[in-house]
Amino acid sequence: MVIDAKELYQKIEEYMNQEVIIEGWIRNHRRQKEFGFIDFSDGTCFDHIQIVYDNQLENFEMIQKYHVGSAIRVKGKVVKSPKENQTFELQAIEVILLGDCPEDYPIQPKKHSREFLREQAYLRPRTNLFQAVFRVRSIAAYAIHKYFQDRGYVYFHAPILTASDCEGAGEMFHVTCFDLEKVPMCEGVVDYNKDMFQTEASLTVSGQLEAETFALAYKKTYTFGPTFRAENSNTKVHANEFWMIEPEIAFCDLEGDMEIMEEMLKYVVDYVLKNCPSEMKFLDQFVEKGLIEKLEKLVKSTFTRITHKETIDILKKADIKWEFEPEYGEDIAKEHEKYITEYFNGPVFITNWPKDIKAFYMKLNEDNETVAAVDLEVPGAGEIMGGSQREENLEKLVSRMDELGMDQKELDWYINLRKFGGCVHSGFGMGFERLLIYLTGVENIRDVIPYPRTPGNCEF
Amino acid sequence: MVIDAKELYQKIEEYMNQEVIIEGWIRNHRRQKEFGFIDFSDGTCFDHIQIVYDNQLENFEMIQKYHVGSAIRVKGKVVKSPKENQTFELQAIEVILLGDCPEDYPIQPKKHSREFLREQAYLRPRTNLFQAVFRVRSIAAYAIHKYFQDRGYVYFHAPILTASDCEGAGEMFHVTCFDLEKVPMCEGVVDYNKDMFQTEASLTVSGQLEAETFALAYKKTYTFGPTFRAENSNTKVHANEFWMIEPEIAFCDLEGDMEIMEEMLKYVVDYVLKNCPSEMKFLDQFVEKGLIEKLEKLVKSTFTRITHKETIDILKKADIKWEFEPEYGEDIAKEHEKYITEYFNGPVFITNWPKDIKAFYMKLNEDNETVAAVDLEVPGAGEIMGGSQREENLEKLVSRMDELGMDQKELDWYINLRKFGGCVHSGFGMGFERLLIYLTGVENIRDVIPYPRTPGNCEF
Repeated sequence: MVIDAKELYQKIEEYMNQEVIIEGWIRNHRRQKEFGFIDFSDGTCFDHIQIVYDNQLENFEMIQKYHVGSAIRVKGKVVKSPKENQTFELQAIEVILLGDCPEDYPIQPKKHSREFLREQAYLRPRTNLFQAVFRVRSIAAYAIHKYFQDRGYVYFHAPILTASDCEGAGEMFHVTCFDLEKVPMCEGVVDYNKDMFQTEASLTVSGQLEAETFALAYKKTYTFGPTFRAENSNTKVHANEFWMIEPEIAFCDLEGDMEIMEEMLKYVVDYVLKNCPSEMKFLDQFVEKGLIEKLEKLVKSTFTRITHKETIDILKKADIKWEFEPEYGEDIAKEHEKYITEYFNGPVFITNWPKDIKAFYMKLNEDNETVAAVDLEVPGAGEIMGGSQREENLEKLVSRMDELGMDQKELDWYINLRKFGGCVHSGFGMGFERLLIYLTGVENIRDVIPYPRTPGNCEF
Repeated sequence: MVIDAKELYQKIEEYMNQEVIIEGWIRNHRRQKEFGFIDFSDGTCFDHIQIVYDNQLENFEMIQKYHVGSAIRVKGKVVKSPKENQTFELQAIEVILLGDCPEDYPIQPKKHSREFLREQAYLRPRTNLFQAVFRVRSIAAYAIHKYFQDRGYVYFHAPILTASDCEGAGEMFHVTCFDLEKVPMCEGVVDYNKDMFQTEASLTVSGQLEAETFALAYKKTYTFGPTFRAENSNTKVHANEFWMIEPEIAFCDLEGDMEIMEEMLKYVVDYVLKNCPSEMKFLDQFVEKGLIEKLEKLVKSTFTRITHKETIDILKKADIKWEFEPEYGEDIAKEHEKYITEYFNGPVFITNWPKDIKAFYMKLNEDNETVAAVDLEVPGAGEIMGGSQREENLEKLVSRMDELGMDQKELDWYINLRKFGGCVHSGFGMGFERLLIYLTGVENIRDVIPYPRTPGNCEF
C-alpha cells in the first residue's frame, strides 16, 4: 500500500523499521560513487523525505540517472536518520521511475527569483516557497469556514454576475455573449435586450448587499467567493480577481461586529500556526524574519478601539513630518496607519469615520457627520479588514442615496430590507489575499494567488 | 444576554425554567382575547419557538398589533409545552418591537408558489422551504470542504477569468473593460491589446486543467468555486452560473478515482442527514416523499461498476420500447440512466466510454476506442458526477489534440505536465447544484441557488 509522506511523519513511531511504499517527485538528487541521496516530496506535507540508495540495488546505475523533477515510486525501510535535524530516512529497496523529467526542467534545486517563477506559475507550487504559501492559503480558507460554521453561520454563495453597479461604478468588468466585433445597437445604444440576461451585466465587486438579505433570514451569514475590480493598477497589493470573506450579522451593532472581527482573525491566525508548523517555520526563516512571533503576538493581544477623531488627534500631536498631513474629515494614509499601530503597540480598531469618505449603506451616527464604520489596522500590514453597522433606518438610507444621486429603483429590494422587519445589523469584509500577505510575509499579491489576474496578465 | 434559538434547542435541559432573551422575527401570529401566540424564528435553526403572551403584559394591546415579518426582542421563561410535538415554549415577560413590517409584506404565512417566491428571491429564505434548502446548501458545502481537508487535500482557487477557451468553445461569457458602444478595432478585428488583459478574456467553464498543476505538486487537490456556461437553455437543470467541485489526484487511476467519488458522496450525504435533521424531515414531508430513505439507502449501498459496453448490452436486452435506441459508441439518454440504476437497484459507475463523445484529456484505453472515463448514475437523479483518468502520455495527448484541431501553443503548460515528472492521475467533477437537487428533492436549479442566473434573469 502506498502511503502519504504526511502519514509517515504523523505516525513515524508506528512506521519505524517498517517497509513502506511512497510515490512522489525528486526535488534534489546527490550522487556518489556507491550510493545516492534523493530528496523526495509527494506534496502531502511540507517536509521532504531523504531516500538513501546504494549499489546493492539492481538498477543502481539507472537510478543515478534519474533527473530532478521526475516522478518515482520507492519501496524502502524507514530507519533512524544519522542526521540530527532529521527524524528518519528511507533505505531504498526499490526505486522505480514513473515519469521522467528532462534536464531543462525550469525548477532546478537552486534559488529562483519570484519574477521568474511567476512566469512558470504552473510549476511554482513545486518549490518550497510556493508549496508553503498555497498550503497556507488552503488551510486558512478552511479555518475561515470552520470558524463560521462552528458558530452556526450560513455560508452564502453571492452571485458573481450582477446587473447592479451601485458599488463600484466604472470599476466593473462587463460580461456579455455578444461578438465584440458586431455589438447589436438599437437607436444609438447597445441593445442589451439581445444579450443573455436582456440587461447589462457585470462581475460583482462585493456580495455584501445580497448577504444582508441572508442575515435578515438566518441572523448569521458569510460569503467566501471571488470578487473583481477592473482597476488598471499595477501595484503589489492590487489584483483584478481576488477572494473576499463578507460576514453579515443581524441584531449586531458596531461593538458586536468588532468582537467578531477580532475573534475571527485570532482564530484563523492561530489555526494556521497550529496546522502549518513546517510551512510557517520556513516562511519565518526565509521570507519574513520574526513572522511567527508577529502572529503569536497578535493572537495574544487586545485590540485597541479608538475613533477616527481620536486618531487624528494623536497623529497631529506626533512629532513627525508627515508626507500627508492628517486631517479631520479625511482618510488616513499608510504612514498614519503604521504610526497608530506602533503607538498602541498592537492592532487598532478605528471607528466612526467621516461619512463622506465611506459607503452609502453605513449607519449615520447621531452627530450627522460620522458613520458607524470601522477599519482594523494591524502592525506590519495596515488595514486588514473593514466593516460597519448598516443603516437600518429606511428614511436615512433613502435620503443618503438621494444625496449621492443613486438609483433607488435598482436597489428597491435592498431598501425593502429596512421595511420588512428590519433590525440593527452589521458586517465586515476581509480581502483573503490581504490576509495571506500578512500570514505568509510574502509581499506581492501575485505570489499568494495560484494564477493571478492583473493588468496585462491572464495566463494559464 | 441574547441567545440563539439553536442554542436554546441544543441545551434545552439547561435552560428549562430559566429566563432568556431572544431576537428574531414573527413568522405567524395568532391573537386571542386574553393572550396570543407568536411563531418565532431567528433563523439560527429550522425549528421555530412558540411564544405565549397574555394580558398581564403592560403593552399587551400593542403586542397584539405586531405584524407578521416584524423583528422583535422577547424576554421570557422557558417552560414545558402542553403540546405533544413541542418540547418547550416561551412565556413572555417582555415583547419589544425592533422593526415593524407592513401588512402588504409578501411573505405571509400561507402557501406561496415557487414561481412567486423566485420573484421575491431576497425574501424567500424566510420561508420554511428556502430556509431549509439554503441551510442544506451551506452544510453540504462545508461537508465537502471537511471531507477533503480531513484527508489532506489542498483547496485550490482556480482562476475565474481565463484567456483559454479550449474546453467550452462558444459557450463562454466574454469579459471586457471596453465600452461596448465603441469597441476599439484594429485592421478589422477587435483590438484586445487595448483591453485589461491585452487579450481576449472569458469566464471559466472548469478549473480542472489548472487543478492538475496542483495535483502534480500536492498529490491531492480540489477546487470549489463558481463556473459559467453561456448556454441559452431554459431548463430545470441549467443555470449560467453554478458552483463546481473538481478534485484531482496524482498517482491515482480510474479505480482509485471511483473509490474517492463513492466515499465522498456518501460522506456528504451522511453529513447532511446528521447535521440538518429538521430540514431533511421537512423536505421529506413536503417536497419529496421518501427523501430520507433514498439518501440513507445510498449511504449504505455498494456502487456497481460496469463498462459502457456492458451498459448498452443490458439496455439492448431490456424489454422496453426506448424513445432513444441505445447504441454502442454513443451517449446514453435519461431513460437509459433511469433503467440502469433500477436494474442494479442502486448507484452505478459506468466506465470506459467511447472516446469520441468524451473530452480530449481523458486517458485512451488500450483498445484505442474507449477512454478511462466514468459517470456516476444515481437512482432518482441520473448522472451526478463524472470523472476520468487523465492522459498522462505526452504523445497520445498531443496526437489527440491534433485530431481535434486544438491549439497546442495555448495549452503548452498543460502538455508540459506530462513532460516534467508526469504520472498517472485522475479526477472528477461534481456540479454542486446537481448534488443539492438530489439532496433536497427540489427539482428546479433556480430553487437551490440564492440568486440564480438564467437566460433573461440577472436580478438582485
